[in-house]
Amino acid sequence: MKIIRDTIHGDIILDDDEVRIIDTKEFQRLRRIKQLGLTYLTYPSANHTRFEHSLGTMYIANNICEKLNLDEYIKRHVRLAALLHDLGHCPLSHTSEEILVKFFGKKHEDLTIYKIENSEIKDLIKERYEYDRIVKILKGEDTFSGIISGTIDSDRLDYILRDSYHTGVAYGVIDLSRIINNVETCDKESGMIFDIKSKAAIEGFLIARYLMNVSVYYHHTTRIAERMLLKAIEINIDEGNIGLEDLIKMDDIDLFSFLRSRKNDSKKLMDMIDSRNLYKRALVLRYKELEEDIIKRIIKIRNDYKKWKEIEEEIAEDLNVNYYEALIDIPRLLENKVNVKIKNGDKIVNIEDLSEISKTLDELMKNIWFVSLYTKKEYVERASKINLLEYFQ
Amino acid sequence: MKIIRDTIHGDIILDDDEVRIIDTKEFQRLRRIKQLGLTYLTYPSANHTRFEHSLGTMYIANNICEKLNLDEYIKRHVRLAALLHDLGHCPLSHTSEEILVKFFGKKHEDLTIYKIENSEIKDLIKERYEYDRIVKILKGEDTFSGIISGTIDSDRLDYILRDSYHTGVAYGVIDLSRIINNVETCDKESGMIFDIKSKAAIEGFLIARYLMNVSVYYHHTTRIAERMLLKAIEINIDEGNIGLEDLIKMDDIDLFSFLRSRKNDSKKLMDMIDSRNLYKRALVLRYKELEEDIIKRIIKIRNDYKKWKEIEEEIAEDLNVNYYEALIDIPRLLENKVNVKIKNGDKIVNIEDLSEISKTLDELMKNIWFVSLYTKKEYVERASKINLLEYFQ
Amino acid sequence: MKIIRDTIHGDIILDDDEVRIIDTKEFQRLRRIKQLGLTYLTYPSANHTRFEHSLGTMYIANNICEKLNLDEYIKRHVRLAALLHDLGHCPLSHTSEEILVKFFGKKHEDLTIYKIENSEIKDLIKERYEYDRIVKILKGEDTFSGIISGTIDSDRLDYILRDSYHTGVAYGVIDLSRIINNVETCDKESGMIFDIKSKAAIEGFLIARYLMNVSVYYHHTTRIAERMLLKAIEINIDEGNIGLEDLIKMDDIDLFSFLRSRKNDSKKLMDMIDSRNLYKRALVLRYKELEEDIIKRIIKIRNDYKKWKEIEEEIAEDLNVNYYEALIDIPRLLENKVNVKIKNGDKIVNIEDLSEISKTLDELMKNIWFVSLYTKKEYVERASKINLLEYFQ
Amino acid sequence: MKIIRDTIHGDIILDDDEVRIIDTKEFQRLRRIKQLGLTYLTYPSANHTRFEHSLGTMYIANNICEKLNLDEYIKRHVRLAALLHDLGHCPLSHTSEEILVKFFGKKHEDLTIYKIENSEIKDLIKERYEYDRIVKILKGEDTFSGIISGTIDSDRLDYILRDSYHTGVAYGVIDLSRIINNVETCDKESGMIFDIKSKAAIEGFLIARYLMNVSVYYHHTTRIAERMLLKAIEINIDEGNIGLEDLIKMDDIDLFSFLRSRKNDSKKLMDMIDSRNLYKRALVLRYKELEEDIIKRIIKIRNDYKKWKEIEEEIAEDLNVNYYEALIDIPRLLENKVNVKIKNGDKIVNIEDLSEISKTLDELMKNIWFVSLYTKKEYVERASKINLLEYFQ
Repeated sequence: MKIIRDTIHGDIILDDDEVRIIDTKEFQRLRRIKQLGLTYLTYPSANHTRFEHSLGTMYIANNICEKLNLDEYIKRHVRLAALLHDLGHCPLSHTSEEILVKFFGKKHEDLTIYKIENSEIKDLIKERYEYDRIVKILKGEDTFSGIISGTIDSDRLDYILRDSYHTGVAYGVIDLSRIINNVETCDKESGMIFDIKSKAAIEGFLIARYLMNVSVYYHHTTRIAERMLLKAIEINIDEGNIGLEDLIKMDDIDLFSFLRSRKNDSKKLMDMIDSRNLYKRALVLRYKELEEDIIKRIIKIRNDYKKWKEIEEEIAEDLNVNYYEALIDIPRLLENKVNVKIKNGDKIVNIEDLSEISKTLDELMKNIWFVSLYTKKEYVERASKINLLEYFQ
Repeated sequence: MKIIRDTIHGDIILDDDEVRIIDTKEFQRLRRIKQLGLTYLTYPSANHTRFEHSLGTMYIANNICEKLNLDEYIKRHVRLAALLHDLGHCPLSHTSEEILVKFFGKKHEDLTIYKIENSEIKDLIKERYEYDRIVKILKGEDTFSGIISGTIDSDRLDYILRDSYHTGVAYGVIDLSRIINNVETCDKESGMIFDIKSKAAIEGFLIARYLMNVSVYYHHTTRIAERMLLKAIEINIDEGNIGLEDLIKMDDIDLFSFLRSRKNDSKKLMDMIDSRNLYKRALVLRYKELEEDIIKRIIKIRNDYKKWKEIEEEIAEDLNVNYYEALIDIPRLLENKVNVKIKNGDKIVNIEDLSEISKTLDELMKNIWFVSLYTKKEYVERASKINLLEYFQ
Repeated sequence: MKIIRDTIHGDIILDDDEVRIIDTKEFQRLRRIKQLGLTYLTYPSANHTRFEHSLGTMYIANNICEKLNLDEYIKRHVRLAALLHDLGHCPLSHTSEEILVKFFGKKHEDLTIYKIENSEIKDLIKERYEYDRIVKILKGEDTFSGIISGTIDSDRLDYILRDSYHTGVAYGVIDLSRIINNVETCDKESGMIFDIKSKAAIEGFLIARYLMNVSVYYHHTTRIAERMLLKAIEINIDEGNIGLEDLIKMDDIDLFSFLRSRKNDSKKLMDMIDSRNLYKRALVLRYKELEEDIIKRIIKIRNDYKKWKEIEEEIAEDLNVNYYEALIDIPRLLENKVNVKIKNGDKIVNIEDLSEISKTLDELMKNIWFVSLYTKKEYVERASKINLLEYFQ
Repeated sequence: MKIIRDTIHGDIILDDDEVRIIDTKEFQRLRRIKQLGLTYLTYPSANHTRFEHSLGTMYIANNICEKLNLDEYIKRHVRLAALLHDLGHCPLSHTSEEILVKFFGKKHEDLTIYKIENSEIKDLIKERYEYDRIVKILKGEDTFSGIISGTIDSDRLDYILRDSYHTGVAYGVIDLSRIINNVETCDKESGMIFDIKSKAAIEGFLIARYLMNVSVYYHHTTRIAERMLLKAIEINIDEGNIGLEDLIKMDDIDLFSFLRSRKNDSKKLMDMIDSRNLYKRALVLRYKELEEDIIKRIIKIRNDYKKWKEIEEEIAEDLNVNYYEALIDIPRLLENKVNVKIKNGDKIVNIEDLSEISKTLDELMKNIWFVSLYTKKEYVERASKINLLEYFQ
């Protein structure tokens, strides 16, 4: 048994089997992967890591299991799945995840299973747990998968609270105990189902998520820094200096020191990030201002690295700047459809059928999405005059 | 003007001159130097940095200036000195500081001036501030130096609160506003002088400092990890791979990647730290159990790298283990004498003359000091049987 | 000078003139008037008072004055007006305010001036302040009135934070420092004008206000208890036992002990409140389900005590229960139109022109309004079958 | 089942049997008994009540039972005893308790059983619980009594946290989860026994208790107000206007309105309290300055109302003031001997054998005790010249 002090949940207690998992090299690596990538360039205290978040997710999952009176066997398995759910993260968490998707068609969830399979963790699990059950829970195929994946789940409940605490942004305050105390059941189709009494708490959660998106996750300064870093990685992927296998093993330190030691243009970008000498936003295309088909086209380009790069190079040429000095940012289009099941008397309904606020937030989520052109401060004026939309036609 | 969000103090406002200082490469480097070194191996959330702490120290210094009704000119200079006071920190803050003292006879305070002198910061200061005044404040030679250095100062008030927040250890809660509101004056001899009304708040501060020492700063797991890291650095200093000039420039990333890439034994130690596969404590010599002259001798060895190394090698030989597998830890003997001036009616007295608790804490501080022998788990039993004291004779 | 410890803002410092005001009997009375009336029957910790809130409002007003660089003279006057703004509250704050409106056509704001005029406070003000300026600020006729009255003002910023802290409801967390730091100017027409940078913080405030309305201010249990208490007071007004002059002087203790000592039916109601043996809601008419003209008619009845009483008596008769056992609750229709001025580049716009969330909240506010019929538990079934709407025709 | 929102512990869940207890008139009365008596005259937010504290004590007791893996039957009984432990409090909690001891030789613990016996609560318990077991736990005669009474118990853990939260005094921050997680066993002789790992947390608790004593519980302003109130009550006991049976039934409202409505001198005292126009301290006799036998004599007088009154009247005569204008305050001598059992390896020891800080605090507790003479501001100078000690000879 081991007690670890957490800033969000106080003491977190691990049993001996969990301690053995945590003590592996693969799990310890999460200590050196920042939860919020380069967000520390905007919120200086955002240095928390996937390690703490994994423990916190396990802690919340545990409390949901206890609320549901699940037996010890299932609780053990849900706890472990929660603990491991982020094992597949690459350096800087979501920052590098864009690379995984773009080049290798992978998400960190896929890599979690991969990492388990290819490490001593697999054997440790097999000794004391039902291995297939863990995998099933992680893959979202188990009755209780909903405890760790869904619109509201242990993962998100933890990170909203944690990211709020470590950025100092107040909006992430949610009513955790009210939400947990109102989990009614969990099944394969609906995930967790909540009692109607938690309506205000769930609205509070959705609002917190929205405000954290606006203030933190989609903060434009962070996105600029992250686009610069991604470009630096892309240059090295193009040159064959780095591949999926490398990224999977690296922690933040490895990635930073790799880029700092390059002789190519990626070093210039890394130096700028280290000095927080960041590009500026020259132009923006907003969701509301775009027609549906152009949005579709942009989203398509998002998954087509070659085309994306071509556009950037075209713009760079037209602006007469270096190819790495005109960067396009295309965020993921947030799947804004909330899916939270509420038990209202005898009926199970979606929160959207009960809550005006929930519907509104769905709409608002789209406003967070916008395509940007970033460049050096001295080129901003020049760049702001081009017709960005044309390049996507 | 720029507003930065801080987890401890909320919004911190910087004027344009301060923004220019912060935007230098030298200052940005503080973003990548952990405030508490390897403490994150014990308290996983302890990833906060010297950058936030520097801002926070400036914030508190500012509020003390305002309490004292100091004029704008002096406030500007005290703010800047507070902002810069930790510029000289090397990787992992106090962890590497032991190296500075041991090998180069330096402290981070000396290096702060050095770093200012040898960077663009000097010119930036000269353009808009009275440079000599800044240096004087930093050196403790100014009337208002006490605002940033003393038993209770902006620096310590900030780090007690901040370290408490980011470790999740409750003991660091101090009554900041009561302390600031009771600063009566500040002069060269006494530093800040506090009104008697702050007695309970100051006792609270001293207790918080003591409990943070016990629970965090002198936590044995952290000390073991730090001794391992120091040994890894020492190996490379001995081999001429790294010197003072390197350490001054490095951030945490540089140091970790440097050690990871070594071919010598330091890489083994670094791997163990990365996997949190740490040595164990085999033996301890406590302050109370030792005679005064032996303590003096040990403290002397603390400043004599050659002798220290000899003792470790001797023990390693006797234990039949590798030279880097038997490590001696000698902490700094805490200058336990509290020096806080209190205005009680017409008299200025030291807190110790008013407060039993203060006197007790002085005594207790000594109990925190102990000499330890660390080694691999499998050698602990063997190592626990030697007579550690004999090696210091 | 005096320092008072506040749970929300830490130390609050009062100068000698303010101390003399606070030390009057009239002001001390606010210590015994609960901020949230009978809310403690729903949230047991909601026992905070108008006294603390008045200090907190002064504290925030002070910080806004400092952000605006207002001179010492104006700051003194705004501080005092903020301190006094709630002096006219009657027992249980808003609970008894409904009586003031219904019977005497007064609000607590009117009574604040009245109380100042008819007490030693007037003379104290005249000695050291410009009396007319204080009155002007309180009446909303001064350039700086907006600091203490408006959609976002010192009063509301304080009570959202305070009510949240003392109920334990998380939703009231707002980003106070971000809002204060973005007050640009204040004038007579627009009140405070905020910089566009505070948009997210202001949305956060509006959301907090909405969620506090739903979870606390319009909590149905509290409303039931308050309707019962109002009925108990109404009985005594009808019988001539109590009048405006009495209510103005009473604190919560006086009102409770007055009602407890009655021989009439009001004692029965008071006993039930003391034992938290409350009526239940039998029927509800919701805003959305009602046509516009019926809403208008209901609102009209809200200001027509005789008619309201008639309806209740009619229902009581039809249900065959005592006249005090069938109570109708008609809340104030929230003036939902938010009025927060934002400086966006050169233009001053309303937050609603910038923020979808603000517009949505305006709509949602209406959902909080509903007319209810309360009765004893044992009559609920019977009562739920009547056609409530008919009684308003 | 019912969920109540608490400021300290979040949601507190009550089962149906507990809800029935809480819904009694006797228990609801605790909503109107302030936890800290007249402390709100010093800390304006200290308006929290025995009601919330009772729920919180139950909550902590529950978590200790779960840590100890006690079966459902025992947990139910410990929970209920914790919930009821303060039922016997009279108005203003400890303020009126001095009266109980002085005149009637009772403590609130005795009255708790009395109140249960003489109300419907007894029957409610008998229906669903083992009545004798509840009484045994409350009387300290059960194996598990230690969970709710001891140097560290659910009661004190709750009130330190709660009083700190509601006064805004920072010192009450204790590491609740660390303490609960280290309860090893509980037995009749030793009460709860804690694992050595909780040493720092327990020291933290003892320090918090000490600092709360100094800053809050023994704050001189509060003590003056309380002595004035006690005198007002004493006058009415002497005149036969009020007796034990009345006090047992009263809540704070009843007591205040009773005293306000008197025609005798007690009304004058009550008016002064209402206006916070309090006596001042004219003289003090400190523990350290007194010889042992004089302390003993004073403590004896503390239990001898007649003698105490005589001394006050004698002083009043000598000062030529009214008998109610010269008041002597003799606090309870804190039983400073800490009794916390720690499991250190195989041995059970007292915290004092392990902790210097604990021993020091024992000593310091005595410094809090002092005998004072209070009188009107205008008589202070005159009163400060008498030889107070002489009156006790």
